[in-house]
Amino acid sequence: MSIREDAIRGTVTPLFENCAANENVTVQALMQGVAAGTICIPKNKNHQFDRIMAVGKGLSTKVNANIGSSKDYPEVSQELQKLCVCLKAGADTVMDLSMGGELDAIRQEILKSCPIPLGTVPIYQSIAEVVEKQKKKIGEVTVAQMFKGIEQQAKDGVDFMTIHSGITRSTMDRVRNHKRLMGVVSRGGSFTIEWMSFNNKENPMYEHFDELLALLKEHEVTLSLGDGIRPGCLADATDRGQIQELIHLGELTQRAWEAGVQVMVEGPGHMPLNQIQANILLQKQLCHGAPFYVLGPLVTDIAPGYDHITGAIGGAIAGAAGADFLCYVTPAEHLKLPSAEDVHEGVMASRIAAHAADIAKGLPGAIEKDIAMAKCRNNLDWKGQIDLSIDPEKARRFREEGSSYKGDACSMCGSYCAIKVYKQATAPDRLQK
Amino acid sequence: MSIREDAIRGTVTPLFENCAANENVTVQALMQGVAAGTICIPKNKNHQFDRIMAVGKGLSTKVNANIGSSKDYPEVSQELQKLCVCLKAGADTVMDLSMGGELDAIRQEILKSCPIPLGTVPIYQSIAEVVEKQKKKIGEVTVAQMFKGIEQQAKDGVDFMTIHSGITRSTMDRVRNHKRLMGVVSRGGSFTIEWMSFNNKENPMYEHFDELLALLKEHEVTLSLGDGIRPGCLADATDRGQIQELIHLGELTQRAWEAGVQVMVEGPGHMPLNQIQANILLQKQLCHGAPFYVLGPLVTDIAPGYDHITGAIGGAIAGAAGADFLCYVTPAEHLKLPSAEDVHEGVMASRIAAHAADIAKGLPGAIEKDIAMAKCRNNLDWKGQIDLSIDPEKARRFREEGSSYKGDACSMCGSYCAIKVYKQATAPDRLQK
Repeated sequence: MSIREDAIRGTVTPLFENCAANENVTVQALMQGVAAGTICIPKNKNHQFDRIMAVGKGLSTKVNANIGSSKDYPEVSQELQKLCVCLKAGADTVMDLSMGGELDAIRQEILKSCPIPLGTVPIYQSIAEVVEKQKKKIGEVTVAQMFKGIEQQAKDGVDFMTIHSGITRSTMDRVRNHKRLMGVVSRGGSFTIEWMSFNNKENPMYEHFDELLALLKEHEVTLSLGDGIRPGCLADATDRGQIQELIHLGELTQRAWEAGVQVMVEGPGHMPLNQIQANILLQKQLCHGAPFYVLGPLVTDIAPGYDHITGAIGGAIAGAAGADFLCYVTPAEHLKLPSAEDVHEGVMASRIAAHAADIAKGLPGAIEKDIAMAKCRNNLDWKGQIDLSIDPEKARRFREEGSSYKGDACSMCGSYCAIKVYKQATAPDRLQK
Repeated sequence: MSIREDAIRGTVTPLFENCAANENVTVQALMQGVAAGTICIPKNKNHQFDRIMAVGKGLSTKVNANIGSSKDYPEVSQELQKLCVCLKAGADTVMDLSMGGELDAIRQEILKSCPIPLGTVPIYQSIAEVVEKQKKKIGEVTVAQMFKGIEQQAKDGVDFMTIHSGITRSTMDRVRNHKRLMGVVSRGGSFTIEWMSFNNKENPMYEHFDELLALLKEHEVTLSLGDGIRPGCLADATDRGQIQELIHLGELTQRAWEAGVQVMVEGPGHMPLNQIQANILLQKQLCHGAPFYVLGPLVTDIAPGYDHITGAIGGAIAGAAGADFLCYVTPAEHLKLPSAEDVHEGVMASRIAAHAADIAKGLPGAIEKDIAMAKCRNNLDWKGQIDLSIDPEKARRFREEGSSYKGDACSMCGSYCAIKVYKQATAPDRLQK
């Protein structure tokens, strides 16, 4: 029985009990969500970790952080260091997007050290191995190699996989007949399209979707339906190619559910902020309420070096509108592979967006954190403020950098603290008329 | 004739022509906005600068940066350095919030070096001088001293002044009869309330509002009606005290307009993101379309060290909903006086929010910048991308930190660049069916 099948049959398992406790919902509510498909629990049967989490309706907005080697940085040690940064910063999941070095070994090492769900984009490895080791072209990877790669990763314990099954000939017709400014900016999407073009064949992840589902179900891998046609710039947002793929993703979502496989759906991308709400509504409608996993959205194209901020703006709006899962964006986006510091800043920016969204959605327990902070502020309780901060280390460091931080003052207002002045003005000894 | 009176009479002046050219609108549209009060042009007749700007409906969203000395950091040199950072980072206006050192001299030095509108909160100086020099209490500053301070600043050339005329006995009744978590967090607001409490008198900036208007008109100072009761935490947002003050601000806006004085209205503050749109609508309705100048809003209380991000999220949403002017928030907010680096990061975050809002509002010329960037990205034109970046220096530095930045690749995807792969897949030599 898969997690989804257990939920549908109403079979209460320790996994559901563990997850419900962590998510602060009842076991019944969690299982109903999984059965309806509005919640997924990314948890491969071969990946052991204690704190089971879930993504979807009625739960806190989750944050994913990407790590991964490249040809220039093929060492697993660097990726394990970034994994630690992600965990410390509070990421809910991690994706290993490695394309350089010994990919099986890197993934297996990361999985061993990863106490949260791990995701991958399996096509990356298939392509990297064919290109780097066999010195062949992207189009020369075989369908068997693609499936073998997915199977290996599933056996290793990958909890969720991005697979670009929504890119079909029909999708590509629409991308081509409506000229985009930036074509396709998804790496997995571009690999898929190159394979289709080179071989003049349908996307094997679409054509052999049932086999894919059987494989994912066997190992209990959650399917994350990739948005290969996501807009790479504001001008391309919400165009016919993107929406055509989304229609396919909705159809594939239903097929996956029927096969007992858990699903989430990936989304844009670059998008003017006034289009975000409509895009969330569209995804929720076309994909029957499946959890929505957004990359950003980035609300402007002109801020390289600050895309953790453009992504936090879009992510907060998306989350408030119903997106369930935010893929972080780091300050290095569009410019370089992120450093450990970039990873930290990216996770923090996304966590802020997720929390702001949770408050807006009225999630129980969300604004309570802000109320606790406000009480500490009003009491000039600096220890409490730092402890309640989303990043206590940074808050402490900043406060200590202010010269007059001793006692209950900060260097911002010094002795002219509004809170103190207001308390004096409204103290009981003042005669109020 | 004041700027507002010229606009109402239809007297085209070089100031309007200069401003309209900078704002990329017709002189007629600009003057109609000024006459209607939906646009203000902060420009003291005693402050000489070339590039006249305006704030309001139909114009780009503007960004203000605060600088200012404190008791611990009383040197003018530091503030001039911060002014340079603001100018280089692209702030549209600067406010001098100094409360330490020789305040007249500091302001006059800043004004000399300031080629953009300068704002102040005059009560800060009145209080600082009475407390520090005369060793008296906040409540002991006289009404004459307050007005003398405003007059001096107006003569020096301050372009806009925050004055908290909306805090009245009636406002305070409502603040007191509905317990707030954080009371009053506006410094100017708390000074005003302390003065009222200490003296058991009405707010002189309300009681003597007509005299105030005469003084502002004489020197052509734009009135920025302060929001002394702005919420200091999410839990206090949109409460009766805040809205009572806003009702007063609407009444005072009309009185100022009748007296020929330009006005903008200040707003929150800390606020859940789902309340922002309603707050903008409320301000625009109650204040008859006067330009809205928001501080943040900060969409969560729990992210000290990252409040430039919480403010950028709120500012982008506010701007898209119609806010005209964003007061920056730096990473140092709630923790310390901002450093030069904090000032830079704060301006950048607010500029990103303002630009994202302008795109959402459909402001002519806004998305065109993003389209130009998208074209450079699609052409792998790195020089163009860096030149078009909101912060070219940071973008260049990040790119150079990636080891494989030479040529047309970046270390993010290396040779697996989606743009290149997609171009290969869709090249004319590929047979497409």
